[in-house]
Amino acid sequence: MSRKILFEKIQKKSSFLCVGLDTDIQKIPAHLQNTDDPVFEFNKCIIDATSDLVVAYKPNTAFYEALGPKGMESLKKTIEYIPDDILVIADAKRADIGNTSRMYAKSFFEYFKADAITVAPYMGSDSVKPFLEYKDKWTIILGLTSNEGSADFQQKRLDDRRFLFQEVMVKSAAYGSNDQIMFVVGATREEYFKQVREILPDHFLLVPGVGAQGGNLSAVCKWGLNKQCGLIVNSSRSIIYASKEKDFAGKARMKALEMQGEMKSILRSKKLII
Amino acid sequence: MSRKILFEKIQKKSSFLCVGLDTDIQKIPAHLQNTDDPVFEFNKCIIDATSDLVVAYKPNTAFYEALGPKGMESLKKTIEYIPDDILVIADAKRADIGNTSRMYAKSFFEYFKADAITVAPYMGSDSVKPFLEYKDKWTIILGLTSNEGSADFQQKRLDDRRFLFQEVMVKSAAYGSNDQIMFVVGATREEYFKQVREILPDHFLLVPGVGAQGGNLSAVCKWGLNKQCGLIVNSSRSIIYASKEKDFAGKARMKALEMQGEMKSILRSKKLII
Repeated sequence: MSRKILFEKIQKKSSFLCVGLDTDIQKIPAHLQNTDDPVFEFNKCIIDATSDLVVAYKPNTAFYEALGPKGMESLKKTIEYIPDDILVIADAKRADIGNTSRMYAKSFFEYFKADAITVAPYMGSDSVKPFLEYKDKWTIILGLTSNEGSADFQQKRLDDRRFLFQEVMVKSAAYGSNDQIMFVVGATREEYFKQVREILPDHFLLVPGVGAQGGNLSAVCKWGLNKQCGLIVNSSRSIIYASKEKDFAGKARMKALEMQGEMKSILRSKKLII
Repeated sequence: MSRKILFEKIQKKSSFLCVGLDTDIQKIPAHLQNTDDPVFEFNKCIIDATSDLVVAYKPNTAFYEALGPKGMESLKKTIEYIPDDILVIADAKRADIGNTSRMYAKSFFEYFKADAITVAPYMGSDSVKPFLEYKDKWTIILGLTSNEGSADFQQKRLDDRRFLFQEVMVKSAAYGSNDQIMFVVGATREEYFKQVREILPDHFLLVPGVGAQGGNLSAVCKWGLNKQCGLIVNSSRSIIYASKEKDFAGKARMKALEMQGEMKSILRSKKLII
């Protein structure tokens, strides 16, 4: 899926919202706990309630892995259930030496049939390139993450005074085309969005951290938007756990609708939709 | 398992060998392909043939994930099959924001019952610390990896002229005790071992890259050994795929025995065993 097609989807839905499916079995409402596959049932309800409002879903693989093979089944069924026109991002943060990354790519792109995967850059080019061999898939490289620990290394200055995250962006953007590579840029680091856009004017950025982690949508958009939108903004916990009762899907829809409404007015004000 | 206990195991077996279980279903000998679980059958044969010669096994999670839930079953069965006195290192290279790393830790330490996991440092302290909450488990942080791409970022110089990998080691060694933290240092970077030991004199280092990736054991040992050995040297492909025929387990044993013999004479020459 090219940037152009992704932008068309964004325009059609007046939304650049991604819902993170960080589905924790311990947080699933009681009435679903007795079903055969509570994680899948929960996701199904969330997807049914929000699919007209989002351009992407982002299952966080850790939450599925923690349940062993059964969790992997839930992940597979969830990805199959997501409508075809919505981007599925496997939030897996994988990467290893070439022959191992090749297996991870095979796992997420061939077995799970995700459209995109998040990838950690520490091991460099040959750990990322096997993902890029899948020309019709997105590889989303960690740039500047939304957590406190991003200060430890990502925000260290190199000998040319640039931050490490800037070097990661410059170097790894050259691994492939911007129709294949996105970067993760955390919403909690809004002061850096301007710097990021100087390096990556045309790339799509996946922005976590809006919602439970405290990021602010309009601040992110101020510097982050480009002429094809260029942002996919993720919210996980504040949507999927908006309620822990039977009304969880309805409440999730309310939260998603609120964010989509805000996105619509931002897109309009920037003349990205009519 | 403390460093002391690990060193006792090394002394007992005159070995600091780890066999990497990067079990690729396409490389498994034909006569095992018709069994119910070829990956597990293969691993079982390798384990039976080598367990007296090794202190650790390192299943590479990518190879299991690529097979979906069935692969996860094979991984679980493999870990259960490994004798209790041998360290099981889940080579998973995970890490994410705190609440997600907590799920990965749960997955590998509680569900799969591995003794150790490899962890990527790019996201910093709060992405690593959830693993360290398991006091009796090892967290093995990527320091300097064995692949070509390690030059891209790990070997970049910071504004104080140190390499990024040095900063990663200094900072992340402080996340916990050296009875809980090891670092990955690739054998293909032997010229850096001296620098690594200046920073981390007492830590255990997990050393991949001996064998198929071209690293040299005696060069690694020259700078890498410390008074409790301090090294676990991994070999994957050159042992487990020593033969692709029915004699694969015997050939794997021969290769492992060769490495263990070399290790024994190194340990003796350094007076680490009698």
